Amino acid sequence: MILGIALTNNFGTHAATWRMPHVDPNAYTNIDVTVEHVRTAERGGLQFIFIADRLFLYGNLAEANPLFNMDPIITLAAVTQATKKIGLIATVSTTFTEPYLMARQLKALDVISRGRVGWNAIPSYEPDAFANFGKIPPPRENKYERLHESIQVIQSLWGSWGYDAGKPDQSGTYANSVHIRTINMHGKYVGARGPLPIPPSDQGQPVIVMPASSHYGLHAAAMYADVIIGMPSSIEESLALRKTILNTVSEAGRDPKEIKFIVFVGFTIGETKQKALDTRRALDVHTDLKMQLTRLCAYLGLKQELTQLDEPLDPIQLKSLRPHPYDQRSIEAVRLAKEGWSPREILSHAIFDPYPTVVGTAEQVADHLQEWFEADAADGFMMNFDDFHTEISNFVDQVVPILRNRGLFHEDYEGTTLRDHLGLSPHYGLDPRIAKTAKWPDL
Amino acid sequence: MILGIALTNNFGTHAATWRMPHVDPNAYTNIDVTVEHVRTAERGGLQFIFIADRLFLYGNLAEANPLFNMDPIITLAAVTQATKKIGLIATVSTTFTEPYLMARQLKALDVISRGRVGWNAIPSYEPDAFANFGKIPPPRENKYERLHESIQVIQSLWGSWGYDAGKPDQSGTYANSVHIRTINMHGKYVGARGPLPIPPSDQGQPVIVMPASSHYGLHAAAMYADVIIGMPSSIEESLALRKTILNTVSEAGRDPKEIKFIVFVGFTIGETKQKALDTRRALDVHTDLKMQLTRLCAYLGLKQELTQLDEPLDPIQLKSLRPHPYDQRSIEAVRLAKEGWSPREILSHAIFDPYPTVVGTAEQVADHLQEWFEADAADGFMMNFDDFHTEISNFVDQVVPILRNRGLFHEDYEGTTLRDHLGLSPHYGLDPRIAKTAKWPDL
Repeated sequence: MILGIALTNNFGTHAATWRMPHVDPNAYTNIDVTVEHVRTAERGGLQFIFIADRLFLYGNLAEANPLFNMDPIITLAAVTQATKKIGLIATVSTTFTEPYLMARQLKALDVISRGRVGWNAIPSYEPDAFANFGKIPPPRENKYERLHESIQVIQSLWGSWGYDAGKPDQSGTYANSVHIRTINMHGKYVGARGPLPIPPSDQGQPVIVMPASSHYGLHAAAMYADVIIGMPSSIEESLALRKTILNTVSEAGRDPKEIKFIVFVGFTIGETKQKALDTRRALDVHTDLKMQLTRLCAYLGLKQELTQLDEPLDPIQLKSLRPHPYDQRSIEAVRLAKEGWSPREILSHAIFDPYPTVVGTAEQVADHLQEWFEADAADGFMMNFDDFHTEISNFVDQVVPILRNRGLFHEDYEGTTLRDHLGLSPHYGLDPRIAKTAKWPDL
Repeated sequence: MILGIALTNNFGTHAATWRMPHVDPNAYTNIDVTVEHVRTAERGGLQFIFIADRLFLYGNLAEANPLFNMDPIITLAAVTQATKKIGLIATVSTTFTEPYLMARQLKALDVISRGRVGWNAIPSYEPDAFANFGKIPPPRENKYERLHESIQVIQSLWGSWGYDAGKPDQSGTYANSVHIRTINMHGKYVGARGPLPIPPSDQGQPVIVMPASSHYGLHAAAMYADVIIGMPSSIEESLALRKTILNTVSEAGRDPKEIKFIVFVGFTIGETKQKALDTRRALDVHTDLKMQLTRLCAYLGLKQELTQLDEPLDPIQLKSLRPHPYDQRSIEAVRLAKEGWSPREILSHAIFDPYPTVVGTAEQVADHLQEWFEADAADGFMMNFDDFHTEISNFVDQVVPILRNRGLFHEDYEGTTLRDHLGLSPHYGLDPRIAKTAKWPDL
């Protein structure tokens, strides 16, 4: 089972975490906090941490910290020197940076980390991001056209210093420069001559991670990704998504076995389920629940507004509950209401997190992971925590031992590179199967 | 006296250093070597290290390592976690990267390093660099037009999260978001809306370093630079350059006292002058000296080729020596020939290094620095070493104590930031004196 953490902003995924007394309110800019979180994850043998990104200010700063990291790639470069084994995945958009610079930064980072880097390759689409580059967004298809060109140029640049160039020989040549070649790729959006003067890293080149998004996005992921990330809300949805992905991968001429499928999940861990709910509730106290309450009404199928936050639903309300039969969140909300939880307590179950979240004991968290994993719904999990300061160590100290006892999680890192940790086969340069079908004037 | 090291490629400035038995031939990709060099410099209280850059493969890889670092900003981000005080200056070209991304990476690096970052802001002009971006170079003036726009956008983005936004208050607001503002700058080449979601670093924002180059370059440096770097070949040339710089700075409406002037210098240090010459000679053995020999002929004013490498010049040759009266290198070459040094030995004096180089004892190195410093030829020095593995510690252990005894160099760092080390006044955002004269539609 592959386990990683979405480490966004040093606080956690809940907007009120920065207010908690045990949290450093300046954690957003404090690299020591990042290092501590990543070291804890490494202590637990987790395969990777992942840093998402947006190219604009996200969030209301009067109320809460910026939701995203200051700069994923700079942060991870710093983290390389404070960790040894854990994989480091950075999100970098293909929309605004030239491939030569992205190829250089990502491969330098991979070399410096001794082969532990993954690149979450995404295009940008948000008008707010384009505004920060003095531009307006192009049509949807265009954005993927540039992504295709960028990834192919980047992978070709990565491969431009061939393995056959050898290692420096002090009594002979520094490199066999016949195997360090130009690429001469010039497309509609981007191009580069090369070569990129960086030899192979310990894993060759960075692992490619991509989200399973819309049609165009999925098609791109099927062509290039070593790891595909999804956000299904149930095992059934995950199995269906996985099937779509595997078909698309086959259509792209690749073997579905080459690819790892990772899904989002969230956890709040407590000694008892009640303690976990209390932890979540303590965060919700600092949150304006009005919008969530309106949303809860809709998911419960109630026509009248919920006015009582701390009382269970009354018999009339309970009678008029109408779950949406295909919506997991709605079914869950109705079930909790019938069990007698108050609206605030129902919200403490984190039913409106964008991914399935378990608010419960370490056993319950392990059960969730086991159930999904054994149903073949995923190869691994991208974990989200409300509060990194407490939940990463809770997971490592309480859940990891259970998973190991059940034979579901490795006892130690299999090797030294991210490719080793994920069980991926070697890969260097642009995949020749992809190169064959791509339309480049000089290929 | 300000002292820093130009740390290019982990080996040194001589192309044969990678062949020396005491050198790790894989140092180009080994971050531990970089860390060791920087830590040694920090042990000596040196104010900064500086990483130059070229956006293409530079050098003949059959013969020697790539001349430049894999990626300056990624390397320095890693170094932040292995050092505490020393300043970290990265070269980043304004020609290919969008200002929002440069502003973000440089300020994130400045925050993560706790205020130790400098940005060597240069445009690219080499056709080889443009080829790696699928482009051809524009006319010379254009390249500075984009540099002006980029620096102004970047400094404005740096200032967009104002000091008055305050620190997070757990019982109140995260930030006073009135003081986190858009910049809305849109020029001919680049633009950004902002804000950049990064608060002030310990020194506010990165120090700006710029070279004293041609007319356009000097004009730009006079407008933005905190530190200006020159490469004069003599004290007289340095005094003249300094005067030109100070006049240009005044014309730009700034106080020349705000600016530090740093000059390039090179050292090979030995217990005796002869031992230093032997060190240099041991490197030259691995070098094809043919071109240097031809050059030496020209500088000696000889009409016939020099064929003897290891014999002093014969009486006929000595009689026909003709130094170029205004060329420091030629005068020096003739002086050495007359002293009886062989051509190979004359070359061991490093007379063809692009900056003044002392091949000699720690005392002689200290004398050179003292002479230039006391003549007011510079505020400090950008030091180059043939071999970082040995020369950085030679300098720190042997020259620094002499400089301290003579009262020329500080006993310890004055503060924690690069701005502190360089004695620069505070500066945040775009200088209002520059903003006033700049032509931006929305300013």
